[in-house]
Amino acid sequence: MRLVVIGAEAAGLSAAARARRLDPSLDITVLEKTPHVSYGACGLPYFIEGQVRSLEELTVYPVEYFARERNIKVRTNCEVVAISHPRREVTLSGGERVRYDKLIVTTGARRDLSALRGAGQPHVFTMDTWAAAEKLKQFLADRRPRRAAILGAGYLGMEAAEALRTQGLEVTVYQKSGDVLRRQDPWLTKLVAAHLERCRVRLLLNAPAGSVPESDLVIVACLYRPNTLLAAEAGIETGRTGAIRVTERMETNLHSVYAAGDCAEANHLVTGRPVWMPLGTTASKMGRVAGAGAAGARERFPGITGTSIVRVCGLGVGLTGLSEHQAGKEGFDAVSVQIEARDKARYFRGVPVSVQLTADRRTGRLLGGAVVGEQGVAGRTNVISAALTSRMTVDEFENLDLAYAPPFSKVWDPLLIGAQQLAKLLH
Amino acid sequence: MRLVVIGAEAAGLSAAARARRLDPSLDITVLEKTPHVSYGACGLPYFIEGQVRSLEELTVYPVEYFARERNIKVRTNCEVVAISHPRREVTLSGGERVRYDKLIVTTGARRDLSALRGAGQPHVFTMDTWAAAEKLKQFLADRRPRRAAILGAGYLGMEAAEALRTQGLEVTVYQKSGDVLRRQDPWLTKLVAAHLERCRVRLLLNAPAGSVPESDLVIVACLYRPNTLLAAEAGIETGRTGAIRVTERMETNLHSVYAAGDCAEANHLVTGRPVWMPLGTTASKMGRVAGAGAAGARERFPGITGTSIVRVCGLGVGLTGLSEHQAGKEGFDAVSVQIEARDKARYFRGVPVSVQLTADRRTGRLLGGAVVGEQGVAGRTNVISAALTSRMTVDEFENLDLAYAPPFSKVWDPLLIGAQQLAKLLH
Repeated sequence: MRLVVIGAEAAGLSAAARARRLDPSLDITVLEKTPHVSYGACGLPYFIEGQVRSLEELTVYPVEYFARERNIKVRTNCEVVAISHPRREVTLSGGERVRYDKLIVTTGARRDLSALRGAGQPHVFTMDTWAAAEKLKQFLADRRPRRAAILGAGYLGMEAAEALRTQGLEVTVYQKSGDVLRRQDPWLTKLVAAHLERCRVRLLLNAPAGSVPESDLVIVACLYRPNTLLAAEAGIETGRTGAIRVTERMETNLHSVYAAGDCAEANHLVTGRPVWMPLGTTASKMGRVAGAGAAGARERFPGITGTSIVRVCGLGVGLTGLSEHQAGKEGFDAVSVQIEARDKARYFRGVPVSVQLTADRRTGRLLGGAVVGEQGVAGRTNVISAALTSRMTVDEFENLDLAYAPPFSKVWDPLLIGAQQLAKLLH
Repeated sequence: MRLVVIGAEAAGLSAAARARRLDPSLDITVLEKTPHVSYGACGLPYFIEGQVRSLEELTVYPVEYFARERNIKVRTNCEVVAISHPRREVTLSGGERVRYDKLIVTTGARRDLSALRGAGQPHVFTMDTWAAAEKLKQFLADRRPRRAAILGAGYLGMEAAEALRTQGLEVTVYQKSGDVLRRQDPWLTKLVAAHLERCRVRLLLNAPAGSVPESDLVIVACLYRPNTLLAAEAGIETGRTGAIRVTERMETNLHSVYAAGDCAEANHLVTGRPVWMPLGTTASKMGRVAGAGAAGARERFPGITGTSIVRVCGLGVGLTGLSEHQAGKEGFDAVSVQIEARDKARYFRGVPVSVQLTADRRTGRLLGGAVVGEQGVAGRTNVISAALTSRMTVDEFENLDLAYAPPFSKVWDPLLIGAQQLAKLLH
């Protein structure tokens, strides 16, 4: 039985590893179009920033590891240009054909710069791949640009802004819409905008988006799309998000063909509808399930709560579930509160943490949350995510038994203060 | 309508404040036997350690605040010596009688040193109250003891050990049983013991417990009991734990009499049975519900997952739910895993975090967890607590959508790695 995996990043390698573990007899080949495999692309902004000194530091496993330790063939510089499912084979750019019995598509996502005027200029970069980061780092060293324009105030835009600000550049972030981090949340936008201003990063909202602005250096951190061309040509269906439609076993519409990672949709646990939120953790989880399926096991990926976290010039911003506006668009009778509270006693260097919680007025169900602060952001965001996963109501959330001791927290955690305020609006 | 509250710490003052908010017309009196109200007793170890410079820093609200801002009479140095429920009155030590329509008992907990030989000596202290901490601090300054013996390896014993070690003393902790932190968990005991050894704190397990050991200074951090004498004499029933039995509305067996805080039992959400786990957060939550009840509202306190956190010489130890041994005693077919994993990438100063997860083999339900490490302990413990609250299975837990970005976490959070390992044992 031959398993072919297209793509050797988080999803593809998780899939291959899982399949191997479940079926030692599978013949597994992973085809990767670039020379690089198994590196944490999420770490690229920190390479630009200087925290990561070399790209090799981001490599989790060297390419030899897979053949030697896991009996997985990983072929780099192997671009798949066509999938012929009736013949159960893929064609590589050199013309070679590789046969499969099971196929896992992890083609990821890409920037579509076709509609962006001026994108072809040599001072315009993306930051998504090893090669792109390497080129950008070289440009910074050679040309010493003074001003940078970042297109997009999503998480990559925020990471790029921090990285370049740390490198001493004057940074302007251009965002087409009126809000940041794709959250449609005026409260969050205001918090983030104020913090960027304190860090002397310019944020231009509702900015014109058709062409590259005047600057010494431009980073494109928008126009991100699921990379589904290959799949679409092979008859693999995409959903309303534009990403590949999959079952909870990561099956596509073609028998024996799975998809996982940034090219695929995921079920949103709050809305019950498919969404496209390309993130490394989701990709790894999807990959495991796809790999299990290809090896004949029946695992499932229930979906995501839409959790993300980003550092914005030292400030942690954690998001999960839906914002009030997003919840309203999904048909909920949404209501939100925002509170700010110290996370620890003053004598333990407690700092203010902002918490936003959103619920459905009709059912009291928690729908989403945001946590913003210098510390304790990931843990609190994750507590909200766990609550969303089990469809907790605000009343249940308000009574959560959270760990308390002065070096770690206050008697009333900011999460519980937020829940108390929200409960008042519901009763 | 007259509401009398006995005790002016977390539970009592939360109760009074909640009752006032819900019923502006209530006549509310809080009777406190000591001169001190509304201080965070949990901060006392950090006063001994030196992190908190004066006890006044621990005061949340000064006593005047309650009369002035909340229309709540708080009377200090007022010890209640009897409750006569048939007459709806309490008697103070001076003989004065105070009438009530509703009564809330928050008499807390106390050390019962009656069976401890040598406990009356002047170098033997507790660390539970303002007065005790003041005396101890004075003793440290006046006598400059070189060696300290701490009786009990519960959370207060651990906090006392850290405080006195920081003050430069040679510290020995004596624990009657063979384990620490009342967890009956050899893995945890081993981790904590090894860390104490690195910090040059001696831990003697299975130590004789009948008398005070030879030392310059002795801290009694064991023999803690619910303070129910007053209640028992008035006919208020206690449960099998020795603490006051309450409903989820914090009602006692006597009509119009509520109990809350360290003197009361709480429902354990994992076992469904009452337990006695005196902690500040639980006390505050219980107080709110008791206060609401006394004001005629019908709120409920569903219970606790048994979450606690303690700093042991710089190491965070978070516990929630049941250990494997405890789960076995409660009739579960318990199985545990322990893993150690880095919490962040090396380039973001990631450190190892140990995670233990326990589940029921029959149902796959998660029953408890422990998190030990230098950072990220509270947040992860709280995620497990939230999962326990909603009776999550290991399979559900394994798929939690946790926040990931390199400054905050790894793609596979230690919690998820633990869940994957545990899932393997269950399938």
